[in-house]
Amino acid sequence: MPDEKKPRIEALETVAESALFRIEAMDLTFSNGNTRRFERLRGRGKGAGAVMIVALSDPEHVLLVREYAAGIDEYALGLPKGVIDQGEDVLTAANRELKEECGFGAHVLEQLTELSLAPNYMSHRIQVVLAQELYEERLDGDEPEPLETVRVRLDELGELLTRADVHEGRSIAALFMAREYLRAREENDASWW
Amino acid sequence: MPDEKKPRIEALETVAESALFRIEAMDLTFSNGNTRRFERLRGRGKGAGAVMIVALSDPEHVLLVREYAAGIDEYALGLPKGVIDQGEDVLTAANRELKEECGFGAHVLEQLTELSLAPNYMSHRIQVVLAQELYEERLDGDEPEPLETVRVRLDELGELLTRADVHEGRSIAALFMAREYLRAREENDASWW
Repeated sequence: MPDEKKPRIEALETVAESALFRIEAMDLTFSNGNTRRFERLRGRGKGAGAVMIVALSDPEHVLLVREYAAGIDEYALGLPKGVIDQGEDVLTAANRELKEECGFGAHVLEQLTELSLAPNYMSHRIQVVLAQELYEERLDGDEPEPLETVRVRLDELGELLTRADVHEGRSIAALFMAREYLRAREENDASWW
Repeated sequence: MPDEKKPRIEALETVAESALFRIEAMDLTFSNGNTRRFERLRGRGKGAGAVMIVALSDPEHVLLVREYAAGIDEYALGLPKGVIDQGEDVLTAANRELKEECGFGAHVLEQLTELSLAPNYMSHRIQVVLAQELYEERLDGDEPEPLETVRVRLDELGELLTRADVHEGRSIAALFMAREYLRAREENDASWW
């Protein structure tokens, strides 16, 4: 069993930064005396985090967007998502992003969970919001081109995962979690969540 | 419907780098003529990618590790994982990491899928390996302190997700995918995967 006492941060400095990112080096002393220099990535956005939306167009279907992913220079299919503006609450940001990316708003929005990306070396977290009772409304976003919306069955996630453009861990996690949550709620199993 | 023609990369330059990371700026022209400057993060590791292991200690239980996560300065619970060494194949790397982090090797290893982290702004991908028929063997890794291994039931992922230290999207995705895969295989449903 490890000692659960957190390592002491002896020094923390910014070693590189760009318009979007800041990289910090941390000098750590673990509770057993071992020392390490770790690097971690922080966002530099002015926003207040990020949000990802599981939007049900009806009880069986969820909306995904197919978007150019610069990190891999390919189109990828995942949940709609975006940055929360300063002063904006999570549900308002979710509804705005849904309108911008999919052309729908939602009458019912609830925050499901918060996911991290790679907490070992990134500070990034994203809020997951479940959106239901959709209505048509499109807002102009900052997308360089319109996104293709793809409607998929929530009970066919296995099939969805066979697609080559479906690989984003946090989107896949949020889809399974939403399905699990909805199934438990249907069975009135308050113990699940 | 968007034009699926990929944007043209007009320029690509490294704008910041550190020991572990490299940040690139990309000037893009989308097929509709819109231009954007995007940033993306690349790893600088000498390795050949990364691997994450879903290790079953018996048909019902999976092994997680609780580790200090520098990105958020907290301990977090997730799947064992690590960098694939140069020249090492994915399954060998998975078995080595499992020995280093959990003190077990596996007689049966199979590659389940590949996950991305945030493909819109990161190039990072991780291989997911299912490990079964474990045997005790510990290898020394580069961990600054021993990791606590936590054994959880694969059919109680909902309960697991109520823990405050369980939030890593890619670990959660891999756990659900492994469970789905094992259930489908049990039902001999070759159509799933």
